[in-house]
Amino acid sequence: MTFLSIKQPILVLNETICRKNLSKMAEKAKKHQLNLVPHFKTHQSLKVGEWCRDFGVKEITVSSLKMAQYFSQQAWDNIHIAFPFNPLLTAELNQLAQSQSISIQLVNEEVCLILAAAIDHPIGYFIEIDAGYGRTGVEVSDFGLIEKIMRVASKNKNMFFKGFYIHAGHSYHADLDGIKHIHEQTRAALKMLKDKYHSEFPHLLTRSGDTPCCSIMDNFEGIDEIGPGNFVFYDLTQAKIGSCLKEDIAVALAVPVVDIHWDKKEVLVHGGGVHLAKDELINADGSKNYGEVVLFKDRHWQLQGHPSYIKSISQEHGIIKASDQLIRNIKIGDVIGILPVHSCMTADCMGSYISTEGEIIDHLEGHSKK
Amino acid sequence: MTFLSIKQPILVLNETICRKNLSKMAEKAKKHQLNLVPHFKTHQSLKVGEWCRDFGVKEITVSSLKMAQYFSQQAWDNIHIAFPFNPLLTAELNQLAQSQSISIQLVNEEVCLILAAAIDHPIGYFIEIDAGYGRTGVEVSDFGLIEKIMRVASKNKNMFFKGFYIHAGHSYHADLDGIKHIHEQTRAALKMLKDKYHSEFPHLLTRSGDTPCCSIMDNFEGIDEIGPGNFVFYDLTQAKIGSCLKEDIAVALAVPVVDIHWDKKEVLVHGGGVHLAKDELINADGSKNYGEVVLFKDRHWQLQGHPSYIKSISQEHGIIKASDQLIRNIKIGDVIGILPVHSCMTADCMGSYISTEGEIIDHLEGHSKK
Repeated sequence: MTFLSIKQPILVLNETICRKNLSKMAEKAKKHQLNLVPHFKTHQSLKVGEWCRDFGVKEITVSSLKMAQYFSQQAWDNIHIAFPFNPLLTAELNQLAQSQSISIQLVNEEVCLILAAAIDHPIGYFIEIDAGYGRTGVEVSDFGLIEKIMRVASKNKNMFFKGFYIHAGHSYHADLDGIKHIHEQTRAALKMLKDKYHSEFPHLLTRSGDTPCCSIMDNFEGIDEIGPGNFVFYDLTQAKIGSCLKEDIAVALAVPVVDIHWDKKEVLVHGGGVHLAKDELINADGSKNYGEVVLFKDRHWQLQGHPSYIKSISQEHGIIKASDQLIRNIKIGDVIGILPVHSCMTADCMGSYISTEGEIIDHLEGHSKK
Repeated sequence: MTFLSIKQPILVLNETICRKNLSKMAEKAKKHQLNLVPHFKTHQSLKVGEWCRDFGVKEITVSSLKMAQYFSQQAWDNIHIAFPFNPLLTAELNQLAQSQSISIQLVNEEVCLILAAAIDHPIGYFIEIDAGYGRTGVEVSDFGLIEKIMRVASKNKNMFFKGFYIHAGHSYHADLDGIKHIHEQTRAALKMLKDKYHSEFPHLLTRSGDTPCCSIMDNFEGIDEIGPGNFVFYDLTQAKIGSCLKEDIAVALAVPVVDIHWDKKEVLVHGGGVHLAKDELINADGSKNYGEVVLFKDRHWQLQGHPSYIKSISQEHGIIKASDQLIRNIKIGDVIGILPVHSCMTADCMGSYISTEGEIIDHLEGHSKK
């Protein structure tokens, strides 16, 4: 299969752009003496994992035990499961930890008690701190709970404290000032915790995770490690908030054009919510945007001077409001590209990739749909 | 694996409820002398296909050629691909039509020309008529285009006209009055087209598709066939608009509870956008609803007197705003159920099911995640 023989929706991955994103983040990490521990929930791919290794990545982040099992094939120095640990998977954790260095995330005493009674292989743990938007984590000032977790865990000699983790996911919906504010808040919280617990745990690490702060900010004092995920592909959301340019987006969903309404300047493609997911942006004119059109050329795609967007989406249908430029340049039976609003979700929906060189690239979901 | 040993997100399917939904729709179709040609894009499952057969279903609807290929294993009398045909798949269509009776959907002359030059096995086609919300289809009054398609197709003796198809997908966002209005519009359009073309095509069929109209309405004069999909599982959206009761919803996403904030009455579950999809409803109080909590008991689940909802969702996280009743009754490590807002999308995200009897049930996506 070559890239140009696409007939059905498939996610096209440009290795060159992806490597450029990796290179840039790796250089930034190096410059600021940060350990880059990228989050693999975005790509979920062994192949992209190999590319990461080319840029010096030795430890990785995932969001589920299942994902950790998948990547343990590659023998990473450490795999961190960055999700409040699900205590129902304690036996599976013990098993995985026999052959793979693993760390987990704790946010309460209950799970810590279960693990302290059951863990029989070395497991590191981070205490997750609430980034300030209430999704998950221990409140930064709740030293009582932090120390309770430390105390319970210390009863099990296989459990060792690695440090504090913050994922400031609310930065994805912020503007530049908001991102700056969030980053300073994250930094201050991690620095305070490090100062407070450093004497007791001289090796404790602080880690923050979000792509916007890691892409935009330049002061990482107080932070030892970064674990961004989305940056590997970026997407329209990241371009909108200034984490990247649209030219940095490394994936485009290839979709066939099945109908054109010349009068309304609308284009129907086979590409809907089951392919792109349903994340949306609002354009400056108030219209909805479920993805932006690019045209494939040679072994890449081209942004359009006058952008066209998917304006509405259902399970399998996408309707593009086409610019004059686009409507002049396409016909039924063409395959065009859609830059995703949220690349992590699109990749998870699609479950595999084709590179711009025509190579099929794996994804944990392991299906080549749809 | 039994139903009660669930440890990770999985979609639980209650066969009893599902069969009740099938039975009710099959009886309604019989009462109104309608041919029930259910849309399999909702369940995408061979096993659920078998259940459909128990209620007299002989012909089915799908949304892609790939889905048609999957269900052709079951030798249906006909498989209709209810999506404007993608002309890039003409060779695959010819191949499939060698062993399986297939019909497709046409909305323009361009694709018809390509097919007329290439089809070498019998293929039926419906002309899709725009239901009035501009997603797809020929405008109902555009007899010029309708007849152009008929004329072009008639050049190929393997292409035969089956009739007119309308999918009134906008009924999913309507209230009861809206649904009535949409149904009457659909009925009037199909009746007019049937009257107009009946003498030339005495066997032409009219088909409409949406679950709300098929569930609620009682006058199908002018309609020969119905192709609803969602009714097999239903969901919170359908319950909200009155197509079903919440008791009729046949699937619930099982999710582990990983953290509880007693003070805020919030519950964190491993169940996010990659499991449920991100469809949302707005509750009466203006809050967002990404799914409603049910509690598993014996081999089923129970609705809660004071409902609790997922109030926010990210890739893997779901945060439940818990009622007092719920917060008193759950603990970390429990597995609870979430009734989905849009069951078609949730099933597609999950890619397989477990029945309440503990049996794994197939889905076209074929992965048991996550």
